[in-house]
Amino acid sequence: MYKIVLLRHGESTWNKDNRFTGWTDVDLTEKGVEEARVAGRLLKREGYTFDLAYTSVLKRANKTLNIVLEELDSLWLPVEHSWRLNERHYGDLQGLNKAETAAKFGDDQVLIWRRSYDIPPPPLPEGDERLTSGDPRYASLPRAQFPRTECLKDTVARFVPYWETMIVPNILAGRRILIAAHGNSLRALIKYLDNISDSEIVSLNIPTAQPLVYELDANLRPIRNYYLADADTIRAAEAAVAGQGRAKG
Amino acid sequence: MYKIVLLRHGESTWNKDNRFTGWTDVDLTEKGVEEARVAGRLLKREGYTFDLAYTSVLKRANKTLNIVLEELDSLWLPVEHSWRLNERHYGDLQGLNKAETAAKFGDDQVLIWRRSYDIPPPPLPEGDERLTSGDPRYASLPRAQFPRTECLKDTVARFVPYWETMIVPNILAGRRILIAAHGNSLRALIKYLDNISDSEIVSLNIPTAQPLVYELDANLRPIRNYYLADADTIRAAEAAVAGQGRAKG
Repeated sequence: MYKIVLLRHGESTWNKDNRFTGWTDVDLTEKGVEEARVAGRLLKREGYTFDLAYTSVLKRANKTLNIVLEELDSLWLPVEHSWRLNERHYGDLQGLNKAETAAKFGDDQVLIWRRSYDIPPPPLPEGDERLTSGDPRYASLPRAQFPRTECLKDTVARFVPYWETMIVPNILAGRRILIAAHGNSLRALIKYLDNISDSEIVSLNIPTAQPLVYELDANLRPIRNYYLADADTIRAAEAAVAGQGRAKG
Repeated sequence: MYKIVLLRHGESTWNKDNRFTGWTDVDLTEKGVEEARVAGRLLKREGYTFDLAYTSVLKRANKTLNIVLEELDSLWLPVEHSWRLNERHYGDLQGLNKAETAAKFGDDQVLIWRRSYDIPPPPLPEGDERLTSGDPRYASLPRAQFPRTECLKDTVARFVPYWETMIVPNILAGRRILIAAHGNSLRALIKYLDNISDSEIVSLNIPTAQPLVYELDANLRPIRNYYLADADTIRAAEAAVAGQGRAKG
């Protein structure tokens, strides 16, 4: 049996501002830093140790991971970074306030953009500076493949090949893996692992900075999964995430 | 022409306590954290960017690197960790106060242990828990090769093969390299690069958290080297390091 731990980053400045973030490289808030610290201490108290960690190329996930590794006294751990673990690209909504966007386009339209499986938000316009900046962290991504927007299906399509080719061999080799990523890249992985339908994945909410354990059989099929925190903590955290992106409340 | 940057970690708790540290995994002090931040800002102001970083498996170097990468907005950068970049192993002196050790054994003996090229300090005794802990960060180091003590010559002997096999190919491939390590592992590298004699290396002092640039020709022979900070800052920092390990003053 294998065991992996998934971790969504702590609160970011744009989580706090209720803005669509996607690939925008915003920082953690102080609360987000503290959430990461609590997650690290929880993993330590429960006796978790790791051999290898995976994360995106976005600082809110990278910092969350570094804080957790510091709490685990494991700053020496090998870490693999890939844009394939990035948050879903939110297209031209990136930077917009979720509630304002909902007021403008309607709750229903925003819920579709946020949670439909195969309908992407409006794309970044041609020539947008976010497409042409030549950011070195995306040097391994051909310019023509740089996403202008993504639906969750697109995120699944770019994360799963990385999972299969880069992560799975290390799990099968017995390495204990921690994945520090984002709400939608983790949702993409969980959809794939648990074979969740396109419609049901919409209602899955992953709370920030709550270690989520997946136990996998010899074929890497999930046996069970559980959060390390107590049920009340998780319910409150899930509700907080689910409540975002409404015009009111 | 190639350019690499070497960086000794910021002040550690045992630098501050004036204790022999070696492979003991002590943390940075608040001053050390701030030193690292200043180093990161200096690199940023001077326009440095990197493609790859190397560091030891000791947290004072790992944290220094992470702080610098955060200032450079490069937390996504690939980082390679290796015990071969660790500080020189200080044997049975690890944990002892430098001034007390000097008072007990004499300034001359301590200076020999600190700065002679080929005379190691007394080794850790057989069965010492530091040799038998099974620390996972040393899993790739056969137990029989785990050092019980090191002179600088030993540090050169374990760092240079890593330089040659792991770092040099990436420099030749055009990658811009940052090495965040320790006083003696950096001294070992500099001795090798600049072909410094066994006797002269004794008087080379590397200040904490001061970015040191080496420009290398096509054969990786040094053309010139310089600290990014101004000369007064470097002189004061070198003098502070040189003054350690005396019974008085």
